[in-house]
Amino acid sequence: MGSWTGPANFSQMKTKFQDKPAVYPRECPDGKALKSLPQALLDRRATSHFRPDAVPQEYLDAILRLGAQAPSGYNLQPWRFLVVREKENRERLQSAAYGQAKIAEAPVVIIAFGVPDDWQNYFDEVFEEGLRRGYGKPEIIPDLKQKASAFLKEIPQTVWINRHTMIAVTTMMYVAEIYGLDTAPMEGFDPIAVRREFGLPANAEVVALLALGFAAEPDKPYGGRLDISEIVYDEHFSRQWNNTSESPDRLARKMFDEIERKSTKPFNPA
Amino acid sequence: MGSWTGPANFSQMKTKFQDKPAVYPRECPDGKALKSLPQALLDRRATSHFRPDAVPQEYLDAILRLGAQAPSGYNLQPWRFLVVREKENRERLQSAAYGQAKIAEAPVVIIAFGVPDDWQNYFDEVFEEGLRRGYGKPEIIPDLKQKASAFLKEIPQTVWINRHTMIAVTTMMYVAEIYGLDTAPMEGFDPIAVRREFGLPANAEVVALLALGFAAEPDKPYGGRLDISEIVYDEHFSRQWNNTSESPDRLARKMFDEIERKSTKPFNPA
Repeated sequence: MGSWTGPANFSQMKTKFQDKPAVYPRECPDGKALKSLPQALLDRRATSHFRPDAVPQEYLDAILRLGAQAPSGYNLQPWRFLVVREKENRERLQSAAYGQAKIAEAPVVIIAFGVPDDWQNYFDEVFEEGLRRGYGKPEIIPDLKQKASAFLKEIPQTVWINRHTMIAVTTMMYVAEIYGLDTAPMEGFDPIAVRREFGLPANAEVVALLALGFAAEPDKPYGGRLDISEIVYDEHFSRQWNNTSESPDRLARKMFDEIERKSTKPFNPA
Repeated sequence: MGSWTGPANFSQMKTKFQDKPAVYPRECPDGKALKSLPQALLDRRATSHFRPDAVPQEYLDAILRLGAQAPSGYNLQPWRFLVVREKENRERLQSAAYGQAKIAEAPVVIIAFGVPDDWQNYFDEVFEEGLRRGYGKPEIIPDLKQKASAFLKEIPQTVWINRHTMIAVTTMMYVAEIYGLDTAPMEGFDPIAVRREFGLPANAEVVALLALGFAAEPDKPYGGRLDISEIVYDEHFSRQWNNTSESPDRLARKMFDEIERKSTKPFNPA
């Protein structure tokens, strides 16, 4: 572990790449079959209290490596994760997160963050790696890189990092859930204290905490969800979603098509 | 559809709630079994070109309703989705998103957004609904609401909306993928043009676009991922993750425990 000597130096880093995980657990730690994603979505609740039981190493590896398969713009993967398992460190994190009991209880808590403008340190290598793997023709790469670079210099890094990191956090959460683990995503923390306690760069954007483990008590009841008509719009913000009926436009078009169909000789290949 | 008469008026809205979806497709549109989440993660690529085939209504409903089961802070669900299916509207969206061909090709494109401070319009009702469903005791609610409200007034709404909306977008993307649909999440769009073309509030934060449908051509090759040691840290930012070895702390503790175990009389209940 050469990195013991000091903080990772992004600018001198020769970036390493890897393939999709070939090996990952095919069943839950208790031998049960994996949950389907719909089932995991329906069963999942944010867990308030965890048992001390460890997350088996192969499951933690799978959560991290499958989570890292999430998509990102230009494959730049600006998400970073700090895995906290040592009791003393979980207690330090708990103090930086308003004393939430689950942080000290859960065997694993992941700090999800990103470092603004860090993409510049591995930008060339990500495109080179893509090219090596047959992604795009060499002649389009300069133009693609120029466009990507212009985009990344325009979009606020905070926004870009928050969006991307949450894709990967969400992915990890569901991987844990389909394996029958319990999770608690958290947004309540003091980012300054988290950065200080875990040596993150001063400009690091701390995005979320994710506790992993096994629930110590039955889940809280389901809090319900906003009706789909409250959160989904159909073609325009002036029109709420109504999934029991066709939209007026489509109804009108169907009627028109029907009339046209009847007024035309049917095509008969016989 | 009373909302035809004008834009949704959040402040006068009597918020509706719903339960978990009881009915959703249990197999893919072609009759195949659902993919496991790990398989979907390994198979998924961002789709560049879509066939014109429609997304069956029951699958679109499942994507929206299962997607809405995603977790959110205080269950406030600040994500909003505008579903674009009409050809003319997909072309307008395409123009607002740098002409990306997949937007006009995909049968469904979802605009994911959020409206800053909109949470205030349904804050009380979300807590009341939770209470009705047995979530927490009545006496803790005022304190919980006070804490939530203080948090939401402190955190920049842009950050909060981007984080949350990406949880739900990611959820929808994976629901579509396990059903064998193809997806393309997009970050390249002009938010001002999107707001204008679809009547979104002037302060709406447009977070992402998600195209859904069926790929028209084989996927691009996998671009690889940053090695897990490049993106994961172990206990502290100074220590890169190494999933083939135990951390020095844990190794030291194990050795200590081992020595202690050997120097102590074994517990023997017999």
